Amino acid sequence: MTACSPWPSRSWCWRSRCPPGAEDDLLGALLDQWPSYLAYVVSFATVGALWLGHTAITHYLHGASPLLLRLNLLLLLVVAFLPFPTRLLAETVEHDEGGNVATTFYGLTLLAASGLTSIIWRYAVRTGLVRPDVSNAEVAVISQKLTPGLVFYVVMIGLGLLAPVVAVLGYLAIAVFYLVPIRSLRRRT
Amino acid sequence: MTACSPWPSRSWCWRSRCPPGAEDDLLGALLDQWPSYLAYVVSFATVGALWLGHTAITHYLHGASPLLLRLNLLLLLVVAFLPFPTRLLAETVEHDEGGNVATTFYGLTLLAASGLTSIIWRYAVRTGLVRPDVSNAEVAVISQKLTPGLVFYVVMIGLGLLAPVVAVLGYLAIAVFYLVPIRSLRRRT
Amino acid sequence: MTACSPWPSRSWCWRSRCPPGAEDDLLGALLDQWPSYLAYVVSFATVGALWLGHTAITHYLHGASPLLLRLNLLLLLVVAFLPFPTRLLAETVEHDEGGNVATTFYGLTLLAASGLTSIIWRYAVRTGLVRPDVSNAEVAVISQKLTPGLVFYVVMIGLGLLAPVVAVLGYLAIAVFYLVPIRSLRRRT
Amino acid sequence: MTACSPWPSRSWCWRSRCPPGAEDDLLGALLDQWPSYLAYVVSFATVGALWLGHTAITHYLHGASPLLLRLNLLLLLVVAFLPFPTRLLAETVEHDEGGNVATTFYGLTLLAASGLTSIIWRYAVRTGLVRPDVSNAEVAVISQKLTPGLVFYVVMIGLGLLAPVVAVLGYLAIAVFYLVPIRSLRRRT
Repeated sequence: MTACSPWPSRSWCWRSRCPPGAEDDLLGALLDQWPSYLAYVVSFATVGALWLGHTAITHYLHGASPLLLRLNLLLLLVVAFLPFPTRLLAETVEHDEGGNVATTFYGLTLLAASGLTSIIWRYAVRTGLVRPDVSNAEVAVISQKLTPGLVFYVVMIGLGLLAPVVAVLGYLAIAVFYLVPIRSLRRRT
Repeated sequence: MTACSPWPSRSWCWRSRCPPGAEDDLLGALLDQWPSYLAYVVSFATVGALWLGHTAITHYLHGASPLLLRLNLLLLLVVAFLPFPTRLLAETVEHDEGGNVATTFYGLTLLAASGLTSIIWRYAVRTGLVRPDVSNAEVAVISQKLTPGLVFYVVMIGLGLLAPVVAVLGYLAIAVFYLVPIRSLRRRT
Repeated sequence: MTACSPWPSRSWCWRSRCPPGAEDDLLGALLDQWPSYLAYVVSFATVGALWLGHTAITHYLHGASPLLLRLNLLLLLVVAFLPFPTRLLAETVEHDEGGNVATTFYGLTLLAASGLTSIIWRYAVRTGLVRPDVSNAEVAVISQKLTPGLVFYVVMIGLGLLAPVVAVLGYLAIAVFYLVPIRSLRRRT
Repeated sequence: MTACSPWPSRSWCWRSRCPPGAEDDLLGALLDQWPSYLAYVVSFATVGALWLGHTAITHYLHGASPLLLRLNLLLLLVVAFLPFPTRLLAETVEHDEGGNVATTFYGLTLLAASGLTSIIWRYAVRTGLVRPDVSNAEVAVISQKLTPGLVFYVVMIGLGLLAPVVAVLGYLAIAVFYLVPIRSLRRRT
């Protein structure tokens, strides 16, 4: 098996710490990789929430300006980068050394993606790209929904320097918060 | 060749057991990897069946609720996770040790995906998201089609602890069963 | 560099034979990998030709039957499998041992994809899925275009057992032949 | 950790040079990989610019000819190839040996993609595929926008043989230049 090292490590071990003798105790090896599953779920939930938010935003616009397209590309650049900090997090979140660096790096990427989504929405509102039939109340509800997540990300990034695993659970909580439908807009989103 | 280990192992050896001297007997090495081909076909057939089922379901709906979108994201999370248990299965299904763990892990993933598809359909029926022109008989036919697969998955997961290869063939049989068109709905699906 | 073996080998060496000292002569190492570039171009051209053919076929249909959807899934299964024989070809086409096995394996995959495309078209014609406004002459032109490629694939698969590189160039020729537009249908495809 | 070599090297080290003891100083290891981030941003910006240019071009066409579809496939072939020179660049741009080869190889790929985009546009103009309601002035503005980038790519490819990092920054500048919206066409792109 050592002759073909990449494959076993790739599928049996998502993270760097691969206990010797993993073949004999595959169940233990799979359970031992909980950081990989956690990182996968957090990143998936965050991208899912960003996608829902992005769909809601574009639903309210009647057109796009050239700058909006460029901001959108910037958001895509950050989201396409996410797998790298996700893997880094999965490998190191348990470790004393490196775990806090990886969690901070991961949190900054999530903050960048959420911040860009918020910027795209605010830019669209200010430059009159929102459909005229959308009421000011609806615009305010969406703007309010986008703000607390950003504040919470900053708090979690700070916390991640001390307690990485807690911060990751916090990132999951933010994604779940974003995923909860907005009650007053229910019929439209 | 040892200097560049990843590539040969990646393409010559889909699984962990890479017989020494595979270069001299490439045909034998390719044939020896039947678990990889089997796992690929079973996963592909299952995803194909899920996709057809999902298409049929959305075809019968006149709209989506916020919760339906979230259930859909959950289904996507499970389907996007499938390559990991598929590789694990391909590597270990033949082995005495680990083969049953990998097969159970694989079966649970398939059960989760099928179960979520069934939940999405039942949720849509109960909350009135099905188009009004769809008859109750048609709704019942689809509901009936989705149930036996779930029962069979549970049986196969139990069997997989004893005879992994048989269980994998059972998973293939379920996918093929799902892929057979529903006769009474033929003109619509 | 040996500490991080996967990355260098992944990007510097597409194939298994990675000359020692590749870092010092990167240009030579890049040129030495011509089988990888050739395999990439042949597979890309074949998938491109299949895609154009598939687009032309669906353009002529007024609907899909359940069986057509399943045949389509089968074609997708083969096309999604293509990267594996492509890499195998890139690694071994130069070698005395294994080169002919890899070329045959590759050719059989291309034959399966082309054959399924042809079967999909013939099935659509026979079951009346072609739009009524399409003349018999047009149907005949497409059917004729799809046949010679299959014969040529069979010939090349045989030749590949003796002269792998010649067969690969033959596969490229077939893809180019498919890519040449049909003159009498020019305005529609 | 050596037992599972691929994962750590994959996520901790994007490039070939992975300093020993990277686990102890993850922050330093991450910062040390600036060529990977630079290469990612340059490739992403270039593909983004090509995508915007391509969207603008297809927006001005009223149809496609068979040859246009083939030119489009050729562009896709080059863009799909880009990840390979990007990784090569990330690994070697700092090195004395190989850095200039990788930068030239990368620049030639970017030049091919930009050149093909320009050829597609000129071909569409000459064969009358541009919508009749588009004024000659608008056509001229787009043609002018596409040309200087090509000249600049040739200059940078030459410069890359001497100063690879400067050339990469030049490639970034070209992508940013392409990404700046055309003022006189603003309402349409």
